[in-house]
Amino acid sequence: MKQYERCAAEIAELIGNGSLRVGDRLPSVRAASASRRISPSTVFEAYYLLESRGLVHARPRSGYYVSARPPGRNPEPPVSRPLSTAAQVEINDLVFEILDLAGHPALVPLGSAFPDPALFPLAKLGRSLASAVRRLAPHQMVEDLRSGSLRLRQQIARRYAIDGLNIAADDLVITNGAMEALNLCLQAVTEPGDLVVIESPTFYAALQALERLKLRALEVATHPAEGIDLAALETALAQQPVKACWLMTSFQNPLGSLMPEAKKRDLARLLARHRVPLIEDDVYGELYFAPRKPLPVKAFDTEGLVLHCASFSKCVAPGYRVGWAAAGAWKQKVERLKVMSSLSAAVPSQAGLSDYLAQGGHDHHLRRLRQTLRSRRDVVLGGIADSFPDGTRVTRPQGGYFVWVELPPAVDAQVLLRRALEAGISLMPGQLFSADRRFGHCIRLNFGAADAPALQAATRRLGQLAQALLA
Amino acid sequence: MKQYERCAAEIAELIGNGSLRVGDRLPSVRAASASRRISPSTVFEAYYLLESRGLVHARPRSGYYVSARPPGRNPEPPVSRPLSTAAQVEINDLVFEILDLAGHPALVPLGSAFPDPALFPLAKLGRSLASAVRRLAPHQMVEDLRSGSLRLRQQIARRYAIDGLNIAADDLVITNGAMEALNLCLQAVTEPGDLVVIESPTFYAALQALERLKLRALEVATHPAEGIDLAALETALAQQPVKACWLMTSFQNPLGSLMPEAKKRDLARLLARHRVPLIEDDVYGELYFAPRKPLPVKAFDTEGLVLHCASFSKCVAPGYRVGWAAAGAWKQKVERLKVMSSLSAAVPSQAGLSDYLAQGGHDHHLRRLRQTLRSRRDVVLGGIADSFPDGTRVTRPQGGYFVWVELPPAVDAQVLLRRALEAGISLMPGQLFSADRRFGHCIRLNFGAADAPALQAATRRLGQLAQALLA
Repeated sequence: MKQYERCAAEIAELIGNGSLRVGDRLPSVRAASASRRISPSTVFEAYYLLESRGLVHARPRSGYYVSARPPGRNPEPPVSRPLSTAAQVEINDLVFEILDLAGHPALVPLGSAFPDPALFPLAKLGRSLASAVRRLAPHQMVEDLRSGSLRLRQQIARRYAIDGLNIAADDLVITNGAMEALNLCLQAVTEPGDLVVIESPTFYAALQALERLKLRALEVATHPAEGIDLAALETALAQQPVKACWLMTSFQNPLGSLMPEAKKRDLARLLARHRVPLIEDDVYGELYFAPRKPLPVKAFDTEGLVLHCASFSKCVAPGYRVGWAAAGAWKQKVERLKVMSSLSAAVPSQAGLSDYLAQGGHDHHLRRLRQTLRSRRDVVLGGIADSFPDGTRVTRPQGGYFVWVELPPAVDAQVLLRRALEAGISLMPGQLFSADRRFGHCIRLNFGAADAPALQAATRRLGQLAQALLA
Repeated sequence: MKQYERCAAEIAELIGNGSLRVGDRLPSVRAASASRRISPSTVFEAYYLLESRGLVHARPRSGYYVSARPPGRNPEPPVSRPLSTAAQVEINDLVFEILDLAGHPALVPLGSAFPDPALFPLAKLGRSLASAVRRLAPHQMVEDLRSGSLRLRQQIARRYAIDGLNIAADDLVITNGAMEALNLCLQAVTEPGDLVVIESPTFYAALQALERLKLRALEVATHPAEGIDLAALETALAQQPVKACWLMTSFQNPLGSLMPEAKKRDLARLLARHRVPLIEDDVYGELYFAPRKPLPVKAFDTEGLVLHCASFSKCVAPGYRVGWAAAGAWKQKVERLKVMSSLSAAVPSQAGLSDYLAQGGHDHHLRRLRQTLRSRRDVVLGGIADSFPDGTRVTRPQGGYFVWVELPPAVDAQVLLRRALEAGISLMPGQLFSADRRFGHCIRLNFGAADAPALQAATRRLGQLAQALLA
């Protein structure tokens, strides 16, 4: 444990045992530095870590204060301990079977991968689309197909710049959603048979991508709040011929974990030492609940080793299918693969999004969206605390819209899914989130997919169903 | 040569030597059947073959008449004679290098893959898009992602039905343009290292797809007007472990060849005998100049072996990126590959196209587009006849917008390209259209990419440049 982590853990302990209460002010950075005999920057790292975990928040020109904790009495799940052997991936049939089961529109869609589309400014976006298409000259329908709309790439580059990342419009390739970007990046850095590091648990689409490209998965221990374990990753990189990592460092699907910034910097250094590229799936990065946007690992990438993928699908425009890759040293290769695979993302979607971003109001929408998701998270965590069986553990995501629930080992998540479907509720069983289906007593719940009353009722009902499976 | 082919060849000879002149009526089917002692259906096949080659046309309730021939004195290129050995494909660098050279917007784009976007009803389509997006409920942005818009699939199925093909909405997968459909179909029926039959010459995107998926190409002799040679194909299927064919049977890129319907039926039977799937790239099928739309091989597929791919990009909506696959026995596999690769085509594009088709007027647009392309073809063929070097051979496409020009062997198409670019004109050099770059003295010209005066001037200039290279 590093110094700032020890400092953060001690303060978290004080908050946990009631010594520091909601609204209390933490010591100033200078005072803590003096009393603890550590550098001010270490104190700052510790406070920032506490902030990223939702325990404290900053007030401008005042200092750090203890935050109201999200409701819930359940502890976090433990750090995962996957096998250290590579696995062939064979998950597709199960994934599609579950997606078929859970996709019925009449269900309360806690198993969905999308947030409630009613949370998005679709009417405004539609007006932008209409206006942009009216203004497009015919030749614009077939130019810019290779890299994607220049104007949109400039707008994305500007948003990177505001976050402090130095990524130019020319560094970007617009894709058919982040899904295509991720797949192309994975293909760009691997050959069939190669070994790829993933988190444990991991998003099933990453497993599917590995299966499709005939890659082998190496699952690495992952902390439920702070992401992949760097010591375990370092061991893997040292001992096995890892060709790439595919990680979600901010609001991981399904855990909701957020890797602290200092750890992201360490991860970038570790990957640079081993010359291993990182495919960074950052589709939830805009959905943070803390006051500041978390930086991606890409921010600490000095070697062009990070292929950063994101999209507009999860924060503003579901169904428009516009994502992108900032693929570093692999930019040209990814662009060529995209031209060969699908040629281009839809020109109207790109033009509409570009017009929408130019209108202003996007950040206002994002602020409201984050508040809504945060309050819905609290509804679900509260419902779990109230009605799930004793022994249930749950993550406390500081962003995104997924919570990962570890039930007592006797609960089979696929059985729970079938009971839930009969009760009109979907969920994603843990079996989908690893190559060896080890998370059979875990479930992923989407707290962004329905309104608060529906979430409350559905969470309670799931708790009753889980209790019944144990009885 | 079959009976109907011999009959057609004899009549073509009569037209060629002036015995039958423009406007003359052919004997009735009954009369020809009696005089030639062949069945009426054989006569009909012969007349239909002549019609598909543009030599005669039918008038309702009247009979068949000799057509005005497109201008030009140049003979057709010969049937291609590729090597009968499979080849690894390594074409990407050259393709992207040429695309970079030829992509400048100020050029007369005879090298372009797209027709002039001004030929499309983009304003009307834009209004449909605006109206459709306004009416989309939020939940519609994330439903139907798996197979694509149900309404659009129903509309496509209806158009198949009008052509006499029995393809249901459930048989279709909507994709990001035909490019994605073709790639997914190819991936669905092959494993890396497999052997795939292609035409010779063939569209460079097919070569790129083979290279990307690490497949080997087997180029098969191809007739400049009637497509792949079935005898040569049969030999290949009998002697080599062919896993799939990728063919463009209507208005092939780059030849412009149209396989006659009887030959398509024979092709379907041949593939069924050998249980080899056909990826049928039919993106130009709507751009026919004869009175009737040519049926695809899919129409004769009784085994689900034909994966028929098409799109709206070449006939109504460039840049919208909406295509589809009717993948027969591989429908579920293609759908799953699509979900894993890019999830879905853009929902606004699909909704806009669906609204546009429902408005009516699409067939009227298509009729006008075909007339325009046909007259532009004649401009280019006339220009080639007037100004290209002696010994030039050229195809006479009955649809689409590409013509394939075989220059005297001393002309290097890449050198001609460089001269043409200096003169403000692009073209596609023949080297891109085979794995072994054998067509180094051929060029593909796009006669749909500019208006008649520009086409005329550019064709003349190209002829002068080619003459200069020979001097």
